Amino acid sequence: MDLQVSIDRTPGAPALREQLERQLLGAIRSGALRSGVALPPSRSLAAQLGISRGVVVAAYDQLAAEGFLVVRRGDRTRIAKLPDSPEESIAHPRSSWPTAPIRWDLAPSSPDLSAFPRSEWVTATNRVLRAMPDAALGYGDPRGTMELRTALADYLGRVRGVLTHPDRIVITSGSRQALSLICRVLAAQGARRVAHESPGWRLQRDAALDAGLEPIAAPVDAQGLDHSNVQADAICVTPAHQFPTGVALAPERRGVLVAWAREHAALIIEDDYDSEFRYDREPIGALQGLAPDAVAYIGTAAKTLAPGLRIAWAVLPERLAPVVAQAKSRADRGTPVIEQLVLADFIQRGGLDRHLRRTRLRYRRRRDAFVAALGEQLPEARVEGIAAGLHIVAHLEYGDERALVAALRRAGISAEGLKEHGARHDAAPALVLGYANVPEAAAPAAVSDLVAVLQNGSWR
Amino acid sequence: MDLQVSIDRTPGAPALREQLERQLLGAIRSGALRSGVALPPSRSLAAQLGISRGVVVAAYDQLAAEGFLVVRRGDRTRIAKLPDSPEESIAHPRSSWPTAPIRWDLAPSSPDLSAFPRSEWVTATNRVLRAMPDAALGYGDPRGTMELRTALADYLGRVRGVLTHPDRIVITSGSRQALSLICRVLAAQGARRVAHESPGWRLQRDAALDAGLEPIAAPVDAQGLDHSNVQADAICVTPAHQFPTGVALAPERRGVLVAWAREHAALIIEDDYDSEFRYDREPIGALQGLAPDAVAYIGTAAKTLAPGLRIAWAVLPERLAPVVAQAKSRADRGTPVIEQLVLADFIQRGGLDRHLRRTRLRYRRRRDAFVAALGEQLPEARVEGIAAGLHIVAHLEYGDERALVAALRRAGISAEGLKEHGARHDAAPALVLGYANVPEAAAPAAVSDLVAVLQNGSWR
Repeated sequence: MDLQVSIDRTPGAPALREQLERQLLGAIRSGALRSGVALPPSRSLAAQLGISRGVVVAAYDQLAAEGFLVVRRGDRTRIAKLPDSPEESIAHPRSSWPTAPIRWDLAPSSPDLSAFPRSEWVTATNRVLRAMPDAALGYGDPRGTMELRTALADYLGRVRGVLTHPDRIVITSGSRQALSLICRVLAAQGARRVAHESPGWRLQRDAALDAGLEPIAAPVDAQGLDHSNVQADAICVTPAHQFPTGVALAPERRGVLVAWAREHAALIIEDDYDSEFRYDREPIGALQGLAPDAVAYIGTAAKTLAPGLRIAWAVLPERLAPVVAQAKSRADRGTPVIEQLVLADFIQRGGLDRHLRRTRLRYRRRRDAFVAALGEQLPEARVEGIAAGLHIVAHLEYGDERALVAALRRAGISAEGLKEHGARHDAAPALVLGYANVPEAAAPAAVSDLVAVLQNGSWR
Repeated sequence: MDLQVSIDRTPGAPALREQLERQLLGAIRSGALRSGVALPPSRSLAAQLGISRGVVVAAYDQLAAEGFLVVRRGDRTRIAKLPDSPEESIAHPRSSWPTAPIRWDLAPSSPDLSAFPRSEWVTATNRVLRAMPDAALGYGDPRGTMELRTALADYLGRVRGVLTHPDRIVITSGSRQALSLICRVLAAQGARRVAHESPGWRLQRDAALDAGLEPIAAPVDAQGLDHSNVQADAICVTPAHQFPTGVALAPERRGVLVAWAREHAALIIEDDYDSEFRYDREPIGALQGLAPDAVAYIGTAAKTLAPGLRIAWAVLPERLAPVVAQAKSRADRGTPVIEQLVLADFIQRGGLDRHLRRTRLRYRRRRDAFVAALGEQLPEARVEGIAAGLHIVAHLEYGDERALVAALRRAGISAEGLKEHGARHDAAPALVLGYANVPEAAAPAAVSDLVAVLQNGSWR
């Protein structure tokens, strides 16, 4: 039997054995060499190709070890029984994550990614990789590096009034993971119900469900979360800047919420996602600073730096810190080390403070320009939310919110509707609009394109 | 630097200096400003608050005079060490992750961390941060960046015989997460039992338990996993180099295992954790290459580069790829982006191939030296395992394995016992010994220290 095999002897070509293996494997996978077919004896094939017999024997051995050939004493080497080749379906996969071209990115959750301090990040990476001990590259503390936890304990104390210690902090891969781990720990400790803001961040509800807990909707009004009718083992809240409505939790509700949590031995889960951005006054300190024993605080680098970093942190009451650390360890053994050290370096050398001063100014101007353009071009919209964060809510008078969001997306404008975040189905439509990626000068054009879709009317 | 300070300018409010003092003092007493933390220079704080610099200087002076702040020439003003702050309870937590000094690191799971290609990594980071589009820093595809999935599809096809497409790959934060996500998806689809190797990697069992599945022990013999009496919906296996015994799955068992999986509609979960390291021959291709529709393949950068990267990958059958991607999205929304791009760059420019050539040679020499030293100094030990990976198993004649491992740790030698990995309790003791961190020339000394503990006899 002749095999369709050829040998490339040009300099730089793969080793003879590798060439032979690849061609045999290709023939087997393509079906050209079918199950049960006997291969030529190694001596014949070697003679046919003008190579040494040892090369052929080695190639046969390799493919036999991998299960493609069967070698039996007293019989020729044969192709093994193989499943039908799945190659066909592999060549034409259906991607389930298509991305449409976006003209205006008004999604509420993304900061201005062009502001990411790339060159400072490279410099810090260089410094970290020169200085870190080898051992730091191993399986480390599942809570995260001591460097980042220490930097965060200082930073959060200084900027957010958070009272904690590095040993009470667990670094997570994004705030979604922090919330999931806390919910899973609560479930393991016997909790059954977790309250979430309504409207609120979808993940508050999803994380409870994923952990096998019952999510309870708690209403949000102009004073923020109203927990007065809630019965639950834990409650999620965004006190500094409620997501998505943009209101701040009223001062008088802060103390009452903490008292409620103490009385019911419930946990407050504070999501402090974008509190570094407040434009009309100094930011209000974290709720955690009032009651470190009753609050699990979650913060993130997703808004201050970039979501792609996937770095967040949970600041935990003493009793929860070890169990959340264990849950983190079982989930993924810890967050990647090098970028934790880079972020710690960036914080401790003042880079984050400088970056926040720059971006806070930028976002304040973008918010002012965007709100002014809305006021001029769409005066009937009512804009809600304090001067903070990266988004506003624009309440409209009537129409089908879901159809509107879809029409906007078709027009290349990514935005979200308030009902996606749990607003009542019979409420008037409202858009959650992020302005972080719209430069000041572009605000009138962005709003003009938005208004053009609104005036089209097909969504009403 | 930002401080949590605000100024009240309503008539009748306290003097500016007093307001500032009170707030600083509150922050110090509450522990929010911890001992040693530097205050912002008076000029910056004055600018931040819109007050005159003299006011800030006066407030700092007063607090320094009262002993709350320390002023040193040439240094920033810092918070003093205070007796009665709540620091005590917060500052002296019981750390649950102590680290003892280790003389010989013979833990089986760690590669030689000093081999990490630091300067190439910085260069690649620099290149990536210059080239990547802003949008890549946002919330991306939960499966991971297309760049890394493409690089891996090529690399795994070339080096491991894996047949796949980037759309069937999910990048995870370590192989532990990959296994956990797959188990969780199987549980959601109605699976009930997952078989694991015994002895085997503890995580095979833990991941099943965490997902609410029943773990079934399947025996391992000199031919590798024996699945013949297993009834399960999925089976975990380390075919290239069984962990911890170090045997390879026999060629005739490969096809039979695949046939079994097909017949029972069961999933094979292949953990290919250290297969790049084979010293006596070419590595045997992945089982996945025989049956891409029946195998979920897991690989990792933890052994080839460093565990601290926390980058691994799952190569999935078509039916599982979208659901595992969703599970990944719900767990943490995706693995950090920048280092994915750095790894993709490193693979595609040939850096990983070069690094593997260097480290393969290094580990082969270390293995040879370590095994030779054992043969000389401890001839009664039977060494098990093919010439591959980063560890061997040394079977001893009699004694208490757990006491031996504890005695070794007291002597500064980190090693693991085979029973920690599920060997039978009545089996003779055996040590799982990693040689990756023992330089050739140090092998006799490391083995000598090991033998000294063995000969002490207190563990028998």
